[in-house]
Amino acid sequence: MDQLRPGERIDDLLVSNLRIIQDASAFCFSMDAVLLAHFATLRSQDRVVDLGTGTGVIPLLLTTRKQLEQIIGIEIQAVVAERAKRSVKLNGLQDLIEIICGDLRQIERLLPGYRVDLVISNPPYWPLTTGQVSPNDTKAMARHEVYCCLEDVVQAAAYLLGTGGRFAMVHRPQRLAEIFFCLEKYKLQPKRLRFVHPRLGTRPNMVLIECMKDAQPGLTVLPPLFVYDGDTYTPEVMALYYREGAV
Amino acid sequence: MDQLRPGERIDDLLVSNLRIIQDASAFCFSMDAVLLAHFATLRSQDRVVDLGTGTGVIPLLLTTRKQLEQIIGIEIQAVVAERAKRSVKLNGLQDLIEIICGDLRQIERLLPGYRVDLVISNPPYWPLTTGQVSPNDTKAMARHEVYCCLEDVVQAAAYLLGTGGRFAMVHRPQRLAEIFFCLEKYKLQPKRLRFVHPRLGTRPNMVLIECMKDAQPGLTVLPPLFVYDGDTYTPEVMALYYREGAV
Repeated sequence: MDQLRPGERIDDLLVSNLRIIQDASAFCFSMDAVLLAHFATLRSQDRVVDLGTGTGVIPLLLTTRKQLEQIIGIEIQAVVAERAKRSVKLNGLQDLIEIICGDLRQIERLLPGYRVDLVISNPPYWPLTTGQVSPNDTKAMARHEVYCCLEDVVQAAAYLLGTGGRFAMVHRPQRLAEIFFCLEKYKLQPKRLRFVHPRLGTRPNMVLIECMKDAQPGLTVLPPLFVYDGDTYTPEVMALYYREGAV
Repeated sequence: MDQLRPGERIDDLLVSNLRIIQDASAFCFSMDAVLLAHFATLRSQDRVVDLGTGTGVIPLLLTTRKQLEQIIGIEIQAVVAERAKRSVKLNGLQDLIEIICGDLRQIERLLPGYRVDLVISNPPYWPLTTGQVSPNDTKAMARHEVYCCLEDVVQAAAYLLGTGGRFAMVHRPQRLAEIFFCLEKYKLQPKRLRFVHPRLGTRPNMVLIECMKDAQPGLTVLPPLFVYDGDTYTPEVMALYYREGAV
């Protein structure tokens, strides 16, 4: 198949017959991205930017939720961005989704004066000083703050949003205090928060957070999301993975 | 019984035979205080200050967890503070617990240069501008920020703590972003967080938070605490209410 490069494969997104090209040796999309794509508040005709889009999984999944105006995915790694572009084309969504290879720290040059309704991001979780950085560069950049840190992502989001604009992010609960502090700095008021726990009785290993630019304080913490019940997905998670149009 | 004033009654704390004097027409201690008293990290010989101690329920409960050096409860309302003093005496704990009638906004004058291991607080939850303020003054001050706001409490806590000192608080999840921002301002780093949900599948209506002064970032979010299972308390909550020594 000419849309595949060596090492790549086509995976089924299990919803609306969407497919995605991934390289098994590189960073593949995770449940984090799937949960985030379904957590964010989305309205018809929204314009959306995905900061650090990677495989492009979030733009692809968002198209199944609402009729959107446009989705732009920004990805710094040329190989990864090019692969995301081919996934978009594979699904015939090139009129709706645009993948830009660029550095989100230069958002003012990439998308000067551009305003969107929603910025979404599944950023690297860990500062470079903690943990082992993967020897595989692609994975390292997806997991560690090699090319952008939390503040870079938040700052880029704030640039793209007007008053009332939304920013949705998935991150690690360990960093919640830093996240809130950074959001406050850029006038992104946390409005919705949901913790994701592997199962009942365990600590959360993910937090989904949605903010609104220039909003008043007042946070809704949602019921916890549990991923597994015994060895199987909980019905709520199952419903995200196997929706209408699934094979 | 000469330790009671008109309208007052003696309630059983259901643990270690502790009893507490309350006035049914005033603010009575709630589950919030009980959960907080058991959530805070406590070590033997700790010195503790409870900011806004009300009935004195938190100092009383803390004495059942560890052998402490001293517990000081600060309460601005003279009638309430005097009642708390009688509760302390009723339990024969006047060598361990001191109730001070004073304004926590003047902590530097109340306890000049005093250093403690733990500051604990179940403060008023709501700014004066939101909701109805109770016509009963005692209740209004316990629930609304009449005489102190979030920042006053956090600032007083920070004053009493040295590096590594702990501050434990219960509050409303809606205000979490403000809380984190305020804690950061006074170098109180959130280290433990637990949400309390009425039952499985509901939003939390309480958040327990513990900070450490001058600590590095890194937050542990604990598994959610569910209060009810059907019409009865969950075993975890039941265990807090009916412990050793309970009648």
